[in-house]
Amino acid sequence: MMDYALLLRTFLLRSAKYFAKKEIVSVYPDSVFRYTYGDYYKRVCQLAHALKSLGIGRGDRVASVALNDHRHLELYFGVPCYGAVLHTVNFRLPQNHLVYIINHAEDQVLFVDADLLIFVELVKDQLKTVKKIVVLSQTGKMPETSLENVVLYDDLIKDFPEEYDFPIDLDENAPAVMCYTSATTGDPKGVMYSHRAIVLHSYAVAVTLGASEADCILHIVPMFHANAWCAPFAAVGAGCKQVLPGREVINMEKLCRTIAEEKVTFTAGVPTIWMLLYDYLEKGGWHDFSSFKTIVSGGAALPKKLLIEFNEKYNFPIKQAYGSTETTPLATAAIPKSYMTDWSDEDLYDLRCSVGLIALGLELKIVNDAGNEVKMDGKEWGEIWLRGPWIANEYYKDPERSAQTFIDGWFHTGDVGTIDDEGYVRLVDRTKDLVKSAGEWISSVDLENTIMSHPKVMEAAIIGVPHPKWQERPLACVTASPGETVSADELKAFLKDKVQAAYWIPDDFIFLPEIPKTSVGKFNKRELRRLYAEGQLISKS
Amino acid sequence: MMDYALLLRTFLLRSAKYFAKKEIVSVYPDSVFRYTYGDYYKRVCQLAHALKSLGIGRGDRVASVALNDHRHLELYFGVPCYGAVLHTVNFRLPQNHLVYIINHAEDQVLFVDADLLIFVELVKDQLKTVKKIVVLSQTGKMPETSLENVVLYDDLIKDFPEEYDFPIDLDENAPAVMCYTSATTGDPKGVMYSHRAIVLHSYAVAVTLGASEADCILHIVPMFHANAWCAPFAAVGAGCKQVLPGREVINMEKLCRTIAEEKVTFTAGVPTIWMLLYDYLEKGGWHDFSSFKTIVSGGAALPKKLLIEFNEKYNFPIKQAYGSTETTPLATAAIPKSYMTDWSDEDLYDLRCSVGLIALGLELKIVNDAGNEVKMDGKEWGEIWLRGPWIANEYYKDPERSAQTFIDGWFHTGDVGTIDDEGYVRLVDRTKDLVKSAGEWISSVDLENTIMSHPKVMEAAIIGVPHPKWQERPLACVTASPGETVSADELKAFLKDKVQAAYWIPDDFIFLPEIPKTSVGKFNKRELRRLYAEGQLISKS
Repeated sequence: MMDYALLLRTFLLRSAKYFAKKEIVSVYPDSVFRYTYGDYYKRVCQLAHALKSLGIGRGDRVASVALNDHRHLELYFGVPCYGAVLHTVNFRLPQNHLVYIINHAEDQVLFVDADLLIFVELVKDQLKTVKKIVVLSQTGKMPETSLENVVLYDDLIKDFPEEYDFPIDLDENAPAVMCYTSATTGDPKGVMYSHRAIVLHSYAVAVTLGASEADCILHIVPMFHANAWCAPFAAVGAGCKQVLPGREVINMEKLCRTIAEEKVTFTAGVPTIWMLLYDYLEKGGWHDFSSFKTIVSGGAALPKKLLIEFNEKYNFPIKQAYGSTETTPLATAAIPKSYMTDWSDEDLYDLRCSVGLIALGLELKIVNDAGNEVKMDGKEWGEIWLRGPWIANEYYKDPERSAQTFIDGWFHTGDVGTIDDEGYVRLVDRTKDLVKSAGEWISSVDLENTIMSHPKVMEAAIIGVPHPKWQERPLACVTASPGETVSADELKAFLKDKVQAAYWIPDDFIFLPEIPKTSVGKFNKRELRRLYAEGQLISKS
Repeated sequence: MMDYALLLRTFLLRSAKYFAKKEIVSVYPDSVFRYTYGDYYKRVCQLAHALKSLGIGRGDRVASVALNDHRHLELYFGVPCYGAVLHTVNFRLPQNHLVYIINHAEDQVLFVDADLLIFVELVKDQLKTVKKIVVLSQTGKMPETSLENVVLYDDLIKDFPEEYDFPIDLDENAPAVMCYTSATTGDPKGVMYSHRAIVLHSYAVAVTLGASEADCILHIVPMFHANAWCAPFAAVGAGCKQVLPGREVINMEKLCRTIAEEKVTFTAGVPTIWMLLYDYLEKGGWHDFSSFKTIVSGGAALPKKLLIEFNEKYNFPIKQAYGSTETTPLATAAIPKSYMTDWSDEDLYDLRCSVGLIALGLELKIVNDAGNEVKMDGKEWGEIWLRGPWIANEYYKDPERSAQTFIDGWFHTGDVGTIDDEGYVRLVDRTKDLVKSAGEWISSVDLENTIMSHPKVMEAAIIGVPHPKWQERPLACVTASPGETVSADELKAFLKDKVQAAYWIPDDFIFLPEIPKTSVGKFNKRELRRLYAEGQLISKS
């Protein structure tokens, strides 16, 4: 068989040649921009020439500090197909981390949204490798800035030819994209994605989630967060229409209008967004979801009641999936098997609240403390291990933390889970978030979900706190649903016949107007633990 | 990213672990056998132990001489996952070719259907490398045979453990399967398929044709012919129910009963089978096609009128696809794009009679005599070239013919075609079957399709025959529809306003009860040319 490298080039050329009429749409606060894959390809070619003119070499890193729009999508293919590496910067990180990742990746050029320049301005004096700032602007105007050596993206590329001979002699294992995962302790950890990994992941996304050319994909996940779950790569390969909502992604009315007008069939996002959407819908917000086929939720567990209500009240069929920055990210998805069609609604909802079955091409095992694979009984807990061609084998230039996580060819996810007799995985906790009370493990995720199933509760986060007798006890941090109040006694009574054992019921409940979140929308338990340690975690309801 | 090889092992383990309840069904003349992927896996493990006991080493070839059933499917995974190479022997080849391919592949063991032993018995004294014959028998009885060193498959494997530690350290480029393509001149040419090629092809089949776990796949294409188009590999990876009809594949009543009873959703086959089926249906044969989602036709052009009638009269939605033994085989498929839904029926049928768009992951170009890529105008002719990770780069141990076909990294298919502005490819001819009359090319495929659109014509094959004035002229060999007669004058009048130019109309029409076919069901033009040269091609209507 031919020694033909799996490269993003093949995806790019295919969409340019065969799907030249299909649309890419950017939604801005005051306008909508649309062009075709035919137009897109020309600008990607111009970008490749521009990278050459800037002296960027093979394997060099260039970074984007940008929201979801067509210029960012041009970088997604232009940079790796040229042979360089696109570092998608999460500008929401704390400043010291932002500086760390740009310096650690040795980014040569930053492509920055005009609206996000402030994030770069604040740290500019600490950046050691950046030679040039390219401003992505939809208005065509250069904003005022304290930065030097700045050029408008459209000006940079406009005079270059609209054809480029993208190299076919790249190694498929060469890096294409990189991003950093926000570590809960220490500096962020970088993950390099090869062309091969992204190509194979794209096939897996299409096969697992049933995505095809007929889909119109709305990218809710930020392109600066785990590369929008690498969905833009799969979408270009398949020739899907793509809708990029930029900062309008948190404007639920605009998002719902866009879904209806562009006839969106496929989207993916984190529970934070679904909660915003749910709130909008509950207030009677206008929507028309009739075009939807597939909605994927990941990044954190979606409370079961929300999943059910989305389905039954709003015909919004959310599916759960699971993965992480280290897994490109698709690892599992909760798609029922064909013979489960006659299952009861309750059983099917239970299954859809799992994170699902392993994707075709990966291997998963769940390993208990004794180092043995757990039984497929849906009960025994263990740490989830993954291996496969789109799973990372190291953190970039970080041998010490790599050695703790990537062991004997398996990625130790740090997630604790179970696997049932059909192969569906359920998350129990992060290994470090498990609460150990009197020698028995308590799952914070289970407990959170049970508390969140109370009608008056919006969000609940559990942390373990030291206890003189039981070593550790669960502490519940709770946010009531809008307009509701709820008491600790009410919740204790509610939990009584719902938890695995009486010792699971938290002794204390703290009521907060909001649970602190990480930059990617997960419950920030590190912050909760810090507040608790400093004696600041007190009810503010 | 992990250096994780793309191996069939991953597919096998996935179906065993996660789809253990799904069925595999073998249909025999007097019985139906069914078991699950759970059972299947145990026997595949036993087979691996048996291969070891026979002294088979990594890369050694073992051959199957078998129809489509579950034992053959066990070989499909057991042999390559063990690390050896399965040579699927086309026993319909002429005896000298059968001997050639077994000796050329250096097959160590032959796994032979009890009913097909005669094919081996006839050539046994000429086989140079075969040490052992293993008989695949559903009755459990050893048939009488003149062969020596013979054992029943079920006896061979039965005492081995039902677990096997399939190697993960195989190179993904290691050969997994091989077969020989029936060359029109000279000896058959061998193609080796790597694990990597089959894994990637399987993803492409699923993505291109929309196959998934929910599908029940009926394997009509023989597993000894281009590995049943490698569909069994994709099916095991996805966990599809599979139905293997053995010799009952040509029993149209049984086939239709099976389709209805097993609720088949997906199948693929050559026009020869569709013609048999059409004939059965036209005679009022019982059928229920309500379960079908996807039916793929390939190997030769399906006449347009048949495609339309299957759709409109029988709700049997055939799609065309294109490929060859050298392309694993899926290269293109005639799937309309999403924005074509408002096209007229006529335009859509015209599109569905193309061979379609290139599959995700391959590159195609059509190159004219001057060596330039043809325009995407649906008119200009050229030879179809392909490259990609599941395209062969050589014929096995045949450097001379390899060099003629695999040139500068492209597979020169020998097929002449056009490509339209949407990227859909239409076949014009085989390069060697084009007719050149007075310096102008005539497409035998176009001419055949036009003649076959006549209601009284069942099949038509065109060959070029020498002509003193025009160098070459097309000769039409025609088979009338059952119960019909048709004359040369009728056909000439019919063609008058349908062909590209008057000189396309054949001067002569030969009426035959049947067009000779190759072992894989294509019109045997070499035989027609031989008969013509020997003065034997005369009307027998």
